[in-house]
Amino acid sequence: MEGSNFELKNPVEPIKVWKGMTVNELMLQMKGSGSLSSGALAKAVDIYERMIMDNAYIFLTLSGALVPAGLKKVIITLIEKGWVNAIVSTGANLVHDVLEAFGGKHHKFYSYVSDGTLYKIGVDRIYDVFVTEKDFNEKFDEPILNIYKEIAEARKGEILSINDLLKEVARRLPDNGSILRTAYLNKVEVFAPAIQDSVYGLQAAVHNRSMQEPLRVDAFMDLQKIWSIRETNHNVGAVILGGGVPKNYVFQSFYFEERKLNYVVQITLDRPETGGLSGATLDEAVSWGKIDKDARKAVVVSEITLAFPMLVAALLERFS
Amino acid sequence: MEGSNFELKNPVEPIKVWKGMTVNELMLQMKGSGSLSSGALAKAVDIYERMIMDNAYIFLTLSGALVPAGLKKVIITLIEKGWVNAIVSTGANLVHDVLEAFGGKHHKFYSYVSDGTLYKIGVDRIYDVFVTEKDFNEKFDEPILNIYKEIAEARKGEILSINDLLKEVARRLPDNGSILRTAYLNKVEVFAPAIQDSVYGLQAAVHNRSMQEPLRVDAFMDLQKIWSIRETNHNVGAVILGGGVPKNYVFQSFYFEERKLNYVVQITLDRPETGGLSGATLDEAVSWGKIDKDARKAVVVSEITLAFPMLVAALLERFS
Amino acid sequence: MEGSNFELKNPVEPIKVWKGMTVNELMLQMKGSGSLSSGALAKAVDIYERMIMDNAYIFLTLSGALVPAGLKKVIITLIEKGWVNAIVSTGANLVHDVLEAFGGKHHKFYSYVSDGTLYKIGVDRIYDVFVTEKDFNEKFDEPILNIYKEIAEARKGEILSINDLLKEVARRLPDNGSILRTAYLNKVEVFAPAIQDSVYGLQAAVHNRSMQEPLRVDAFMDLQKIWSIRETNHNVGAVILGGGVPKNYVFQSFYFEERKLNYVVQITLDRPETGGLSGATLDEAVSWGKIDKDARKAVVVSEITLAFPMLVAALLERFS
Amino acid sequence: MEGSNFELKNPVEPIKVWKGMTVNELMLQMKGSGSLSSGALAKAVDIYERMIMDNAYIFLTLSGALVPAGLKKVIITLIEKGWVNAIVSTGANLVHDVLEAFGGKHHKFYSYVSDGTLYKIGVDRIYDVFVTEKDFNEKFDEPILNIYKEIAEARKGEILSINDLLKEVARRLPDNGSILRTAYLNKVEVFAPAIQDSVYGLQAAVHNRSMQEPLRVDAFMDLQKIWSIRETNHNVGAVILGGGVPKNYVFQSFYFEERKLNYVVQITLDRPETGGLSGATLDEAVSWGKIDKDARKAVVVSEITLAFPMLVAALLERFS
Repeated sequence: MEGSNFELKNPVEPIKVWKGMTVNELMLQMKGSGSLSSGALAKAVDIYERMIMDNAYIFLTLSGALVPAGLKKVIITLIEKGWVNAIVSTGANLVHDVLEAFGGKHHKFYSYVSDGTLYKIGVDRIYDVFVTEKDFNEKFDEPILNIYKEIAEARKGEILSINDLLKEVARRLPDNGSILRTAYLNKVEVFAPAIQDSVYGLQAAVHNRSMQEPLRVDAFMDLQKIWSIRETNHNVGAVILGGGVPKNYVFQSFYFEERKLNYVVQITLDRPETGGLSGATLDEAVSWGKIDKDARKAVVVSEITLAFPMLVAALLERFS
Repeated sequence: MEGSNFELKNPVEPIKVWKGMTVNELMLQMKGSGSLSSGALAKAVDIYERMIMDNAYIFLTLSGALVPAGLKKVIITLIEKGWVNAIVSTGANLVHDVLEAFGGKHHKFYSYVSDGTLYKIGVDRIYDVFVTEKDFNEKFDEPILNIYKEIAEARKGEILSINDLLKEVARRLPDNGSILRTAYLNKVEVFAPAIQDSVYGLQAAVHNRSMQEPLRVDAFMDLQKIWSIRETNHNVGAVILGGGVPKNYVFQSFYFEERKLNYVVQITLDRPETGGLSGATLDEAVSWGKIDKDARKAVVVSEITLAFPMLVAALLERFS
Repeated sequence: MEGSNFELKNPVEPIKVWKGMTVNELMLQMKGSGSLSSGALAKAVDIYERMIMDNAYIFLTLSGALVPAGLKKVIITLIEKGWVNAIVSTGANLVHDVLEAFGGKHHKFYSYVSDGTLYKIGVDRIYDVFVTEKDFNEKFDEPILNIYKEIAEARKGEILSINDLLKEVARRLPDNGSILRTAYLNKVEVFAPAIQDSVYGLQAAVHNRSMQEPLRVDAFMDLQKIWSIRETNHNVGAVILGGGVPKNYVFQSFYFEERKLNYVVQITLDRPETGGLSGATLDEAVSWGKIDKDARKAVVVSEITLAFPMLVAALLERFS
Repeated sequence: MEGSNFELKNPVEPIKVWKGMTVNELMLQMKGSGSLSSGALAKAVDIYERMIMDNAYIFLTLSGALVPAGLKKVIITLIEKGWVNAIVSTGANLVHDVLEAFGGKHHKFYSYVSDGTLYKIGVDRIYDVFVTEKDFNEKFDEPILNIYKEIAEARKGEILSINDLLKEVARRLPDNGSILRTAYLNKVEVFAPAIQDSVYGLQAAVHNRSMQEPLRVDAFMDLQKIWSIRETNHNVGAVILGGGVPKNYVFQSFYFEERKLNYVVQITLDRPETGGLSGATLDEAVSWGKIDKDARKAVVVSEITLAFPMLVAALLERFS
């Protein structure tokens, strides 16, 4: 009978907290709790730790307002530690990253100002983070158009992949702690499968409309590259921040092949009940053969800026 | 003083229901309620009605599992009535649409079967809708590879936009009620800005790996086309189903320009508090200048398959 | 082998919509869709229809801002049709119901006014519905204090149950379409297990502080009554709007007994992943023996004012 | 003009993480981020710290599966530090607390077992935490019935408030780290306004059905006590875990009076868009006069077991 050998051997261990406890100590406490978000996050730390110890090839996917909200340095920490091998990002996160590389700023402000007024005074809002149009023009649009012009001339007549394009951009960035530049220096591959859906795309279209040498970027070329990553790596893990195209893009790379994802952690507030991929359970991807049925996996139901820094701080403590 | 002329002139009118009431009659009742999802949906119907009466150019964006879940015919109804001028979709919805065009099926099943077992027996799960791998191979992969081969030869040496590619696919589909084919026949433009993030992309990569004549598809080219739509239309509306790349792609087309979106309705369960664009309020897009500050706009917090058919059924009743 | 006889016999039937379609026709269309919210709602209509046909004793639970948002008449329709036998409500819904019975109003207003200003001008906000403090004083507080005085004298020396108290209130209400009065006239029992957590409670405390004859209301007495309902009815169903105390109160009445709930439908936006009862799956209540393992059950992930009027309108059409 | 003096003076400070960082150090880092959940939690820590420094009277409200999921000791830490003066709880949390006091256990289990099977083998499920029926009978039902018998005799003829009843229970508990006992020993008042909606209520009804000396517990009596708390304390704060009756009960105590809540923090995943109080913004309560318009307040969108231990661990570090 199903359940006949059901044993209850693991009592819930109430979480203890103490003065001066470290983030990893808190994570270890949360491991004993029920598997709500705290238990799931504790499990996610264990899985990521295991990916690192097993020398897995690790994809990190970025979606949502991660850079504007302040996660840039946490991501860079992972790159510098060698705990991520490829980043798959929305265009927007790399836009805001490069805007900061050229001196642009993100701001916090607390009083209520209507969006109509913000428009009039040239301030763009991302939930409660603000960027000025002036910064956008001077610290992103102008430098990126200059860079595009250089690339178009340097690679005249060639068709680039999106990954190539981002490498060419990275090569021309100042050395001041952007994700794109740090990834480049650390040989971490960067993919932005929907790059056209960002100001990179808009400015590329501006460039191509007005310049003699157009930028030619192929939509499909990166898939070969991501397949060869899969083929040359036995152990592959994915750390999914949010959902969207970056999640699907990594998952689909493992569709219809022998090799599957062996470790997956996801942090998201999206719900499974919409049927969309962003909030779909990781089990669902097992049916498609994208994730191995014996993979280690955990979904943490949480806003990302809360859970992700805890995860990384705990990891840092586990490795000397 | 703020609020000194605050007047309470609109009492909530309790919703009445009766035997045989039509969907539009229910919508009109919901208009009198508080502005929770019912009031918001009633407002969305009014706004969409207004877009049609004002002859606005209307974008419809598709994200999530809309086709597998059964919304194909509702979308086609909008196309056939002329109430949508351009569709911006995830790749996945157009994959499942074309799979059905070639005879593939989506199934419902209620008993619990583990995803590991589903994988073994070759069944893919989308929440609680199922597709067989056999159908995927025979009714999507094979026909699309044949079509790609034809296109690569017919357009030898050319670089296509994603919109071009989809038109070439549509031209080769049977006349049996797919979204892509119906859009093509009705001169509705179809965009799939992240097409590489779908089985279209995977199969294009398969094609390019093995065939002499590669398919060359440019990532940025469609932006010019979408800009010229904006430039030639005074009134532009957007009907946003879900969020993701399709939402952002339409919105960003109106960034840094005089012309803005004049009408926007969105149906989504995504939350604003993550900071991501999918769940961002429409007000936020006013600060960026993507939506006009005087635009008519409504967000309906609902799973799409529930609210969207109501919206369309109500519209049908308002026009003879 | 698990899944070896897995058959895919039910294709998803895409939803069709047409001009003048009735709400029930839409529900029947949604039945063919995948089981996202539309499929779940279609199933909920079938289950409720079945409760009625099987002559089940039906509990309806109310939580959230249902009356302020405009659901009063939909609930009254169910009472008048005889499709509900007992109501379990938060105190608040019955407060706003009685406020309207004495001529108080709920209002809609669309411009942004800060809550600080609303406080200054004596307007209370419930999401985007407004009540004036003046109405609260004159149309609820004063009449309810008068009613309490009468009850305290009429039932001098007695200890009442909450259900008794509400009946005594109902007896003294005008005949103008309140839920409480209509339930009373139709012999529908009304329970408000957390009545102290509402203005009924506050005013009872005001009464008891100042009046010679106190109102004595026992916290536990209604449990006997609800148990005898269970014992005298073979078929029992529950229609759960939201979650909270009303959901738990009905469920717990079936704990540790032979008789269990046979039909349950719930409409809610609460999530299972918090571990709380409001968003807990109905399956979970099977483990406790509150819901029968063969019960018909459906959870509709939706804001209530959207899905509930559809459910009731569809039911009306199914019965002549 | 609105916004004319809009200044952007606070740049987002990207969060830094490091090896061995303490929870409070992480909180201080999160303070610099955008105000998504991380920024909101950092603000909540500051507000709670301020409540303590200002010697505010502090209400802590408990809803959801906090005790089963493992938060008991975190709550007890607050009691023992003197950082909470009154607890307002659902009945269920105090049921599971007392079940543990008498030796009952909560268990974790990871394999899938159907709820029908769990029922058959006598195991109750709370998301993914399990309790046996045997424990429920022996470690809660039997001891609480004995305690009720003692109380009914000791307080013969009296009418108790719920707060009284819980004190009488607490007096009879072993000294082994339950919330109820620890609160009693530390003179922290405990309220459970919907106690009838829990196994306390069920067993009280069992007692009253069969015993000569009934337990008489008044529904409204505690409101006087909570009002006198308000009247004798100038500074009052509330720490709201979840929502439900406990949230509303504290808030409504400040309705129609001069004194208002001066500090409020809430941790919840409930959404404002349902109109219900659980997910309502704290601003809304300002319109009602329950929260002061100048109160310090923060809502953290998070599952509770994740954010709350962080908050308490950070606090511990701030006080010597």
